[in-house]
Amino acid sequence: MKSNIEIQRIEKSKIDSVDFNNLPFGSVYSDHMLECDFINGEWQTPVIKPYAPISLDPAAKIFHYGQSIFEGMKAYKDADENTMLFRPLENWKRLNKSAERLVIPHIPEDIFMEGLKKLLEVDNNWIPTNEGSSLYIRPFMFASGIGFHASPADSYKFIICTAPSGAYFAGKVKVLIEEKYARAANGGVGFAKAGGNYAAQFYPTQLAIEKGYNQVIWTDDNSHEYIEEAGAMNIFIRINDTLITSPTSDRILNGITRKSVIQIAEDMNIDVEVRKITVSEVIAAAQSGSLKEMFGAGTAAVISPIATFGYHGTDYDLPELENPFAEILKKAITDIQTNKAEDPYGWRVVLD
Amino acid sequence: MKSNIEIQRIEKSKIDSVDFNNLPFGSVYSDHMLECDFINGEWQTPVIKPYAPISLDPAAKIFHYGQSIFEGMKAYKDADENTMLFRPLENWKRLNKSAERLVIPHIPEDIFMEGLKKLLEVDNNWIPTNEGSSLYIRPFMFASGIGFHASPADSYKFIICTAPSGAYFAGKVKVLIEEKYARAANGGVGFAKAGGNYAAQFYPTQLAIEKGYNQVIWTDDNSHEYIEEAGAMNIFIRINDTLITSPTSDRILNGITRKSVIQIAEDMNIDVEVRKITVSEVIAAAQSGSLKEMFGAGTAAVISPIATFGYHGTDYDLPELENPFAEILKKAITDIQTNKAEDPYGWRVVLD
Ligand SMILES: Cc1ncc(COP(=O)(O)O)c(C=O)c1O
Ligand SMILES: Cc1ncc(COP(=O)(O)O)c(C=O)c1O
Repeated sequence: MKSNIEIQRIEKSKIDSVDFNNLPFGSVYSDHMLECDFINGEWQTPVIKPYAPISLDPAAKIFHYGQSIFEGMKAYKDADENTMLFRPLENWKRLNKSAERLVIPHIPEDIFMEGLKKLLEVDNNWIPTNEGSSLYIRPFMFASGIGFHASPADSYKFIICTAPSGAYFAGKVKVLIEEKYARAANGGVGFAKAGGNYAAQFYPTQLAIEKGYNQVIWTDDNSHEYIEEAGAMNIFIRINDTLITSPTSDRILNGITRKSVIQIAEDMNIDVEVRKITVSEVIAAAQSGSLKEMFGAGTAAVISPIATFGYHGTDYDLPELENPFAEILKKAITDIQTNKAEDPYGWRVVLD
Repeated sequence: MKSNIEIQRIEKSKIDSVDFNNLPFGSVYSDHMLECDFINGEWQTPVIKPYAPISLDPAAKIFHYGQSIFEGMKAYKDADENTMLFRPLENWKRLNKSAERLVIPHIPEDIFMEGLKKLLEVDNNWIPTNEGSSLYIRPFMFASGIGFHASPADSYKFIICTAPSGAYFAGKVKVLIEEKYARAANGGVGFAKAGGNYAAQFYPTQLAIEKGYNQVIWTDDNSHEYIEEAGAMNIFIRINDTLITSPTSDRILNGITRKSVIQIAEDMNIDVEVRKITVSEVIAAAQSGSLKEMFGAGTAAVISPIATFGYHGTDYDLPELENPFAEILKKAITDIQTNKAEDPYGWRVVLD
């Protein structure tokens, strides 16, 4: 790192105004943020400072060309008030994969990890302790350099903000399998956490919401026959006792929850298949009764059971099971995240 | 409009520091900008004010979800110092088409048109008069509302900045026909001028630049067999005396220059075909000698003749012609734009 992290503390914390028993998702922000500029080809000294507006030239390329990427992570506290992260280096690596595809400079590991740890130290009392709540962490990078020429910027900002958060979805989820719109192109940026991927989903998602669904399940843009992922979750489908999930590709985000779930499920001797799965196969399974569960997996949504999916004008309800995989796997992963269980994988990072 | 446009004039113009004989493209900005906020479900009073940084909450959705769109237009001056625009309502309409796809509120015609005219009046002396230069106009809209939930924002900014500009490309253009990466998905946002579409092109374009090309010609994401468009231009291909351009679709931007060129060419009795064109057809034409010209058409690049295209490791040079269509059509369109010729179409809008 260019030099140590500079810390400017807030004068008066706003934490007393927050109701930790009624936390929304990602809309209450902690006292501080970390900011680091990339200028003249190098990262400058990271600064932890009071959460405050950012000032940008109107010609900054973020406004015009969507050159931005982000990550989503969570910090948890255990019963002894230890602070812990879940596989944070995976987020750092993925941020740099996204950076490469969007021609944004790599962020060094020490700025990301030391910056994050220091920020969590400064705002440690913002990490919720209630069951089901956590501190949502949003690292992001974007083009601050200017110009109306569609080319990469010459300067960037890396910022980490945090938000004490409750559940992403209120209850069980109703999804619509998409037949017309698409999230990602072959050879495109779907595998990256690029800002533009998300705005592109708003319109089809809004249409689905108007029809009474919460989320769209994306299919491939060419045939709409292959199940890909949801807006902010990878998708798992249980047919009989086999758990199936689509392989990642240049269209699908390589979710950290997804790969953790695959590992945990395999170690529980659940039969896991990572393979392409068609809409027809899912419909046939629903009709024959072999479709047992569908759930989404992601940092924000954790594991979100799907109650109903819609396709081509018909709604298919998933059965109510005793001890569904979704529940077993959710407990297993959150127990590791929150230090309620052994972590045989070394995924948990306890901060000191 | 909610009320009249408010005008805050700059104290001292910076125009004397600008060398109008050596203008870059889109990187020198005029004294003023127009800004209008969408808050609580309505557009507020537009303000023309000194060009200055914008202040945004770090959780503004523009940073996270790429919810942004833009337009590109030009203002010209004729020999008598009249100010004129080219088909500005087309840009307004397209901005609202993009807005719809990105779930951004429509901008009313009067804020767009009256705001633009007033801005050009205030910064009138920033419009270059030299041949080949013009005032590049950048209207843009983005999500200023906050939240780490991937959903549309509740507030937006509409801004117009202007930049006196020279040519977009320095000389003739060398392009690479893309075989691996893609710009747009079927059912995606390629037809919209969404910020994220541009950042997604940077990496493949950078690879092409490293190989000695200026631009990528995009092909469909599925087969890479159909020629679509370039980064900021639609593409025309002349085989013998027929001018061919791809139909627009949900993947291809409906260029205003493109449709003007089609109209002008048809009225000159040039044989124009709007149809899908394959890479194989272009290669075969290059090999048989029937491929006469390729050029890009767009507001920034005007009409840019392509000297060479690369495909699958081979470079194909276009012949040097006397009186190429590109030159004839460029003169015809720029003469209309700059009031050097009659405008039978009513495309020119002279400001008073
Ligand atoms: C498109 C998309 N898919 C899947 C996921 C799940 O990834 P992860 O488990 O790493 O949070 C996310 C959220 O991060 C996402 O944005
Ligand atoms: C992707 C793309 N295609 C084509 C064009 C040309 O469109 P127009 O002629 O309206 O400027 C542009 C630029 O505006 C563009 O960004």
